[in-house]
Amino acid sequence: MAERLYLDDLHVGQRFTSATHRLTAEAIKQFAAQFDPQPFHLDEETAAASMFGGLVASGWHTAAVTMRLLVEGGAPIAGGVIGAGGEVAWPRATHPGDELQVTSEVLAVTPSRSKPDRGIVVVRSETRNQRGEVVQIMTSKLVVPRRR
Amino acid sequence: MAERLYLDDLHVGQRFTSATHRLTAEAIKQFAAQFDPQPFHLDEETAAASMFGGLVASGWHTAAVTMRLLVEGGAPIAGGVIGAGGEVAWPRATHPGDELQVTSEVLAVTPSRSKPDRGIVVVRSETRNQRGEVVQIMTSKLVVPRRR
Repeated sequence: MAERLYLDDLHVGQRFTSATHRLTAEAIKQFAAQFDPQPFHLDEETAAASMFGGLVASGWHTAAVTMRLLVEGGAPIAGGVIGAGGEVAWPRATHPGDELQVTSEVLAVTPSRSKPDRGIVVVRSETRNQRGEVVQIMTSKLVVPRRR
Repeated sequence: MAERLYLDDLHVGQRFTSATHRLTAEAIKQFAAQFDPQPFHLDEETAAASMFGGLVASGWHTAAVTMRLLVEGGAPIAGGVIGAGGEVAWPRATHPGDELQVTSEVLAVTPSRSKPDRGIVVVRSETRNQRGEVVQIMTSKLVVPRRR
């Protein structure tokens, strides 16, 4: 695990790269059964007849896997990866067997005016499959502690 | 299950209300172990010492439960709830035992210029706990088919 970074260690343009995570058909169906029970996430045959032409992962599954990759070292923030919100887009579907990796870039670092022990860092995270195609773009506002 | 709505059936200001879903400590820890393995999502004792003061759900767990409530009738869209992306914010944490419910409002209905069989609908979905406090605000762009 990389060294954990405080607000004081972060600067605009800084980049991070996560490990990789392979998404199986089994995992796609399991997530969907729990959180997004729609035919194109649950069953290969029905999915083949849908607008996706085959089984695809729920966008929220791609987002959750992205979070795991960030937490496991893709965003080495002291105190953890604590998001206040952000924007997410899925320009392309995630398919069974896709191997996801997240690259992140710091867009802004803003110390809090009211809380001197922390600040907000805006990070843009792109999740790519094994062919380098972007399957998710996320811009998040993270709460990051300052060094004491 | 309510009647499913096509692009032609939707108008700005239209509102929908979902069923409710109760989030247990067990479910919070299980989601976190898979997708957001951080102490404040995994263990009551460690969470008590964190900035949250107790166990809280991953924001992505709140988002996933919101999706389930939308799919199960909270957004009765023909063809399913197919999101191209959107914005999400978590103004307040979700705690064990919280009973979540989603109210949605149609903000915009735009037929596609290039694809006459569909359009984009912008929906704002607020997820509230049993005390009526908003725990998530999501603005999504949904792909919605037209009547044939």
